[in-house]
Amino acid sequence: MQLLTETIAKIAPLDWAAMEAARRRLDELTKPRGSLGLLEEIAVRLAGMAGEPMPAIGRKVVILMAADHGVAEEGVSAYPQEVTRQMLLNFARGGAGINVLARHVGAEVVVVDIGVRGRVAHPAILDRKVREGTANIANGPAMTREEAIAAIEVGIEIARQTIGRNDSSGLALLATGEMGIGNTTAATAVLAAFSGFPVARLVGPGTGLDEEGVRQKAKVIRRALEINRPDPRDGLEVLAKLGGLEIAGLVGCVLAAAAARTPVLLDGFISGAAALVAARLAPQCLDYVFASHLSAEPGHRVMLEMMGLRPLLALDLRLGEGTGAVLAMPIIEAATKIIKEMATFTEAGVSGPAMS
Amino acid sequence: MQLLTETIAKIAPLDWAAMEAARRRLDELTKPRGSLGLLEEIAVRLAGMAGEPMPAIGRKVVILMAADHGVAEEGVSAYPQEVTRQMLLNFARGGAGINVLARHVGAEVVVVDIGVRGRVAHPAILDRKVREGTANIANGPAMTREEAIAAIEVGIEIARQTIGRNDSSGLALLATGEMGIGNTTAATAVLAAFSGFPVARLVGPGTGLDEEGVRQKAKVIRRALEINRPDPRDGLEVLAKLGGLEIAGLVGCVLAAAAARTPVLLDGFISGAAALVAARLAPQCLDYVFASHLSAEPGHRVMLEMMGLRPLLALDLRLGEGTGAVLAMPIIEAATKIIKEMATFTEAGVSGPAMS
Repeated sequence: MQLLTETIAKIAPLDWAAMEAARRRLDELTKPRGSLGLLEEIAVRLAGMAGEPMPAIGRKVVILMAADHGVAEEGVSAYPQEVTRQMLLNFARGGAGINVLARHVGAEVVVVDIGVRGRVAHPAILDRKVREGTANIANGPAMTREEAIAAIEVGIEIARQTIGRNDSSGLALLATGEMGIGNTTAATAVLAAFSGFPVARLVGPGTGLDEEGVRQKAKVIRRALEINRPDPRDGLEVLAKLGGLEIAGLVGCVLAAAAARTPVLLDGFISGAAALVAARLAPQCLDYVFASHLSAEPGHRVMLEMMGLRPLLALDLRLGEGTGAVLAMPIIEAATKIIKEMATFTEAGVSGPAMS
Repeated sequence: MQLLTETIAKIAPLDWAAMEAARRRLDELTKPRGSLGLLEEIAVRLAGMAGEPMPAIGRKVVILMAADHGVAEEGVSAYPQEVTRQMLLNFARGGAGINVLARHVGAEVVVVDIGVRGRVAHPAILDRKVREGTANIANGPAMTREEAIAAIEVGIEIARQTIGRNDSSGLALLATGEMGIGNTTAATAVLAAFSGFPVARLVGPGTGLDEEGVRQKAKVIRRALEINRPDPRDGLEVLAKLGGLEIAGLVGCVLAAAAARTPVLLDGFISGAAALVAARLAPQCLDYVFASHLSAEPGHRVMLEMMGLRPLLALDLRLGEGTGAVLAMPIIEAATKIIKEMATFTEAGVSGPAMS
């Protein structure tokens, strides 16, 4: 608990002077004011994180947390539970979607077993198992409050190590990724608890349920909410009762990134649930968070609106693993180059607006 | 006219066998079916263009056409007309937004003066001026039908040269870019003529008009439509009467790319108007077209819906120059890597869906 408390205490606001300097610089560049849209907003927020108007991005890392979900026994996923463990090995060997996309953008993949069922020994996987999967949320809490805190603190430690290995080349750029058969069920339950919206409006096919499957999943989520009755003001309670170990780990990653003034790109629906919990524990952390894409899962839009985040990509992704987040990394980098490399009106001898 | 007719005649459908092979391969990869959304659709369409299931992307090039617009004298832009020429020199020297973003993604910028007012001599600018800007569309046709054809054929020649310099490393990936003070007025007029929608629903601030400016711009566009009365079934007539030289050049780029079975990424609103004209001349060309982003200009969404294209990015860009198109290039490349580099269920020893 101490590590969590300390981390939250370290989260500070963005540096407004650096943001103002970045805004001024952007308005001097040879383009109509604001015409680079979200790229300009990204550049301004990065300035606020770094405390200087033109920070660069240094290392890019996706932290991929994997864990199992007791609720998988309710038949809420199109895939059998052993796929979590099998995919973890696929990540370790470099054959999964996230590996391909991370190589494409030059990002490193840190794979963490934070709660997969069974032994998964591989040198490329960090073994930080808190417990072997959660309990079935349809019958009671997913885990104890202590286990939830332990899993958050695993996330904090891993994010800290990742950021700590930062070099002088600029801000580290973190991305969140996850794997866990059944985890859209847990994430939907968390979202329903925080938002109060009817489950039917939030639930979706996950990895590929049919209509009957989605109805069954909604029933399971409603049962989980009725049995657990978490207090929506208590982020830790919602997480412990309805969440998952990988979700808790990602809560820690988001909090640690914010505490270290480091940008963190959310992937899709599961990562979004983690950010919702993090925002309940420390609302200011969202200043350091970017949404990467709008996923195909129906609750995702609600989630992003609750956090005031705008997705950069619209690719109908629903794979998870951090795939959408790494695809957005080049856009974050592009924002840093715009502000640093574009010519100003004066430098280029270009006339400003006739009416400004 | 002969080059245009020949180019249109060469445009052929996508290769369905290669697309089917790509689809089969995608379904064998270690991810839920379809879970990579538009990335999978992109991979399938690229297969159809290349005639093989797993083509690579070779060279990446943005063709940036610049020209002036007589309608600028109606005060339809926030910027004075000389900015077109000044920005052309900025492109040539590498200081503009497009230069920064093209370097970021490893794309080449081909800058073409297809109709800028005044002399613009610079070794990095291709001088292919068809005439020194269009006439004011509020008073009559922008150009003659012959000039429109000549400008399209300039675009065809330049795109052909660009694609022709292709090496064995894979498909060339073209992007369209443009510069021309006043060109959102021309593009809106073209869109209004084709769609029949009221101008008020399509018109927007362009580079930064205020409300009164947008009202004035709408009036000018309505006058242009009334005076010119183009036949919406005749793409060349709409282009010649309401369009621009850079728009015509991009029509040629889109047609030439399709004729050479080469993917072409549209930038924003102006590029979209060019694609609308190209689609009127040769509907099949859209098989080779990708939309890169949804721009802040209100008519853009209508335009993309008319063409059945889905934007990949949602960044509220309204700069033009090809900036959105080059930002989407890494996503097109990502799709080619997914299909080639991901492990299959069998290779990775991962179980398939329990219910498939």
